[in-house]
Amino acid sequence: MNKFPILEIFGPTIQGEGMVIGQKTMFVRTAGCDYSCAWCDSAFTWDGSAKDDIVSMTASDIWEKLNELAKGNFSHVTISGGNPALLKNLQEFVKILNDNQIRIALETQGSVWQDWFLTIDDLTISPKPPSSKMVTDFQVLDKIISRLEDGGRKAHISLKVVVFDNKDYEYAKMVARRYSNIQMFLQVGNDDLSTIDDAELTYKLLNKYEWLTDKTMADSELADVKVLPQLHTLLWGNKRGV
Amino acid sequence: MNKFPILEIFGPTIQGEGMVIGQKTMFVRTAGCDYSCAWCDSAFTWDGSAKDDIVSMTASDIWEKLNELAKGNFSHVTISGGNPALLKNLQEFVKILNDNQIRIALETQGSVWQDWFLTIDDLTISPKPPSSKMVTDFQVLDKIISRLEDGGRKAHISLKVVVFDNKDYEYAKMVARRYSNIQMFLQVGNDDLSTIDDAELTYKLLNKYEWLTDKTMADSELADVKVLPQLHTLLWGNKRGV
Ligand code: SF4
Ligand code: SF4
Repeated sequence: MNKFPILEIFGPTIQGEGMVIGQKTMFVRTAGCDYSCAWCDSAFTWDGSAKDDIVSMTASDIWEKLNELAKGNFSHVTISGGNPALLKNLQEFVKILNDNQIRIALETQGSVWQDWFLTIDDLTISPKPPSSKMVTDFQVLDKIISRLEDGGRKAHISLKVVVFDNKDYEYAKMVARRYSNIQMFLQVGNDDLSTIDDAELTYKLLNKYEWLTDKTMADSELADVKVLPQLHTLLWGNKRGV
Repeated sequence: MNKFPILEIFGPTIQGEGMVIGQKTMFVRTAGCDYSCAWCDSAFTWDGSAKDDIVSMTASDIWEKLNELAKGNFSHVTISGGNPALLKNLQEFVKILNDNQIRIALETQGSVWQDWFLTIDDLTISPKPPSSKMVTDFQVLDKIISRLEDGGRKAHISLKVVVFDNKDYEYAKMVARRYSNIQMFLQVGNDDLSTIDDAELTYKLLNKYEWLTDKTMADSELADVKVLPQLHTLLWGNKRGV
């Protein structure tokens, strides 16, 4: 069996963002990313700082660990990273979850296709805006979105753009126009990844959420969109593993 | 054409709670309720305090008003109350929205059936827990849920229970057991409807949200559930019409 580089397995906790916000879920976090976003909130998955914590696990090791943590208390697993889409053979883990009637959420930036995307229940494609300093390859993204549409997955996918500033907002609008059939989420960026003053962070994040909401509500070019904060950051600040 | 007692029409704003949380939407609030919940956050719709603000409008009056406010800038309308399900002829308004490809959300406690429930895109049935001092008629609720299931509406409906305390939580679990096929939301109750100190309110609500999340995550009898706060209260406190 293939082994995968795993950095965290935890839960049950709530999904704090995106298309299944609020859902009781388990988290599996893979190591490694083909991007290096300026504001990555999971930089430890690829910058080497947590390399000693990476555990090499098979699909059934991960499944066992999930059950050890919470057998009978979950029906949903979120696969996060890093970019889990780098792992072709992760299919093996996805299959175990599918076979056990566990629903699956996945988040990826949309830089790499995998056939197993077609059995993900809640697939969030999250192309990165200018503030990330990354450049989206729209030819790749076009192909990913059309394969998902052709596969009849429209109800199971969404686009999510994190917005820090006006340029990011314009990028989000461009993405919304380009893929106008796909459910679109705007999410407030957290630009203070180190503070431990949770009250201050909550205040700042809610202010930014209000800014983004006001802007979006006034803008008829985004007539059909969802705007959300990150609930886990409002609850637990910058803590990991919750 | 029939006339309806309307108290508020506003938007676009975000849907702050439940199954379409974050969605850009317009709000139409009808007057009148068959309940009188102890902690009703819309008591002005039924307690007489806003009776002079009630406007009698036809379905096309309401549609016109929505377009006057935001033509081209909405694709979703939330019908709220009071209990809009008291209005049999509201069908006329629902039809206008259906015909114009505007998606519709409705919230009702589940005390009255209407045939037009079958064309609501996002129907939240929100039976009231013990802290409300209301008593759920489960025979009526059973019938409503099975008519919706028989009508093939499962993907379009959810149950939501507001939780203030442990007794409410037990009630929520009983509801989840009884209708185990239906998507279930727990929502934190706001027990301070009068404060204007938004920072204090945010702090209290996030603390309660953490309490409810912790409790639910530890409870394997609620293995598949979503737990959410009210985003509009975090953003705007107890203000009306936002
Ligand atoms: S794509 Fe995601 S995990 Fe990778 S660097 Fe960007 S934010 Fe971090
Ligand atoms: S059912 Fe809703 S509107 Fe009616 S009294 Fe209760 S909370 Fe208020």
